Amino acid sequence: MELGIPQSFSRVLSSMCTEPHPAAREAAERFIATNPGDPGTYETVADLESTVVDRLGDITGLADPAGYVASGGTEANIQALRLARNRADTPDPNVVVPASGHFSFTKAADVLGVELRVAPLDGYTVSLEAVTELIDEDTVAVVGVAGSTEYGRVDPIPALADLVADAPGDPLLHVDAAWGGFVLPFTDHAWGFADAAVDTLTIDPHKMGQAVVPAGGLLAREESLLAELAVDTPYLESTSQITLTGTRSGAGVASAAAALDALWPEGYREQYETSQANAEWLAAELRSRGADVVSPTLPLVAADIGTETIDAVREAGWRLSRTEQGEARFVMQPHVTRETLRAFLADLDNLR
Amino acid sequence: MELGIPQSFSRVLSSMCTEPHPAAREAAERFIATNPGDPGTYETVADLESTVVDRLGDITGLADPAGYVASGGTEANIQALRLARNRADTPDPNVVVPASGHFSFTKAADVLGVELRVAPLDGYTVSLEAVTELIDEDTVAVVGVAGSTEYGRVDPIPALADLVADAPGDPLLHVDAAWGGFVLPFTDHAWGFADAAVDTLTIDPHKMGQAVVPAGGLLAREESLLAELAVDTPYLESTSQITLTGTRSGAGVASAAAALDALWPEGYREQYETSQANAEWLAAELRSRGADVVSPTLPLVAADIGTETIDAVREAGWRLSRTEQGEARFVMQPHVTRETLRAFLADLDNLR
Repeated sequence: MELGIPQSFSRVLSSMCTEPHPAAREAAERFIATNPGDPGTYETVADLESTVVDRLGDITGLADPAGYVASGGTEANIQALRLARNRADTPDPNVVVPASGHFSFTKAADVLGVELRVAPLDGYTVSLEAVTELIDEDTVAVVGVAGSTEYGRVDPIPALADLVADAPGDPLLHVDAAWGGFVLPFTDHAWGFADAAVDTLTIDPHKMGQAVVPAGGLLAREESLLAELAVDTPYLESTSQITLTGTRSGAGVASAAAALDALWPEGYREQYETSQANAEWLAAELRSRGADVVSPTLPLVAADIGTETIDAVREAGWRLSRTEQGEARFVMQPHVTRETLRAFLADLDNLR
Repeated sequence: MELGIPQSFSRVLSSMCTEPHPAAREAAERFIATNPGDPGTYETVADLESTVVDRLGDITGLADPAGYVASGGTEANIQALRLARNRADTPDPNVVVPASGHFSFTKAADVLGVELRVAPLDGYTVSLEAVTELIDEDTVAVVGVAGSTEYGRVDPIPALADLVADAPGDPLLHVDAAWGGFVLPFTDHAWGFADAAVDTLTIDPHKMGQAVVPAGGLLAREESLLAELAVDTPYLESTSQITLTGTRSGAGVASAAAALDALWPEGYREQYETSQANAEWLAAELRSRGADVVSPTLPLVAADIGTETIDAVREAGWRLSRTEQGEARFVMQPHVTRETLRAFLADLDNLR
């Protein structure tokens, strides 16, 4: 059997994932047959998971973080809403999520049986007025997005924290920094545990963190919040489990530990600066060709280059996705270099 | 930073996972940076996933299977109950699960907000009378276990199918063969789609299938059942997603494809025969030492060797878990050889 050739990253402009850091790849290969879901059996990787959580705490501004390495941002977002629902005492729970929220919140609402209240945007970030109107006594969580999937924008997290503090039902504030978490520390944005009364936060090492999939992250300010997720595990040597999945990948955990060790903070800072410069350069190049471009606050560019042009560059082998509004969406992951972008623009110019 | 040494499998008697097949490991390493959750971007691995699902259909007796490669048995079980709940039309759904069911069903019930009705056992398999009594018009799914986690026993799946056919609320029949699915085809048990009106089934390549974690499997008789799980994916090149997680591991998918190619059917048959012979040999050896042993129907031995003895062999470095009843539990995964078992018994004899 021929397995075929895995996708090369050379023409991938659409992915939130990237070529793993060499140390992350090497660690993943070493730990590929371990299972942090069974910590009594696989002790070494369970210890590595604690290390990863501590480092994610450093990145997000939390001294003594609770959390775990999830399968990805979707699991972390589902779990954050699940613990908020379980902690609350309402038969009719709802969550308020910005219209810019990732589709995993729609999935979470279906899975958990909670009502999804979608708050419209004011520009590219959530409207605080809309959030205020949507919150009621059955609101168990309010979500803020720190690095939106489509435009890389950051909701006003401190202002959302103020609304949550005044809310009647004592909801939690959850921040989705799945993609943004590894670039935001090098910006002026207020987004993490140190900036506001954030309760839970999603940050994925397998996106800008350069770890291998699956390595997502769920963090909580208080250990007691995660206790809402605990299920007994009768036959394991450990006694309870808070994760959504059972058996888990030691490769993801070990590679996250290796990537964080190699790159935090200076490597990530350099990558952010390179990616952000590339985003601004690409935005200027596209503008000079007459495209409407959404200014890249973080290393993600959305530009209206026309549906036919998107189809044509895809035909030429480029992986490019589009926003709901139809703009082309360029994610400046570490594998997207200036050279890649020059090659893309050359193809674009030839095709138009 | 020292990552430490991953757990060697040489003294692991407690795990449902195992040393991956060499072809599975090699495939995982090649596809470690791909994401089948984004099939528009990562086409090759998406194609491999279809191959895996087709092969899992061969193993479970389903000609044209619907399904996908999940993060593991927990996700597959959650998703099976989720689609059953979504398909049904009751505000107060319940599921009937044998007392021998994996703890993921407890987790699923919490996550999904469905009532868990636990059917007591008759010996080591579910009591059909109890199931009959627990089913009502709000029952959305009945679960049968094909290879229980603690004792490796198989519920009477055809009889459960008959109960489901007569049930008032049109529930689904879900079979959990997460661990058993790769050994049951070589036994006389009736357990799969060809044996009874099974609607959905969990079968994990990363357990007895010798693929790397994460490679679980959810199969459904009808594609329409999986449609209950679909969520729109606005920014991806694909348009909807049925998985519980979002970004997924291409390593798991590719390694499952490679393991199935290398081992189905003859390699798995040989492994089953070796593992089953080891189980029976170990059972006899433990009986000859005076232990009460639960006869191993599948390659899993439970034996009452005393709590102090369990603690002592753990102290000596053996990874051994226990059942809720306190018996030691020996899972005859491929890495557990006769030589391993002889070494274990030698330690046991020295320690007692």
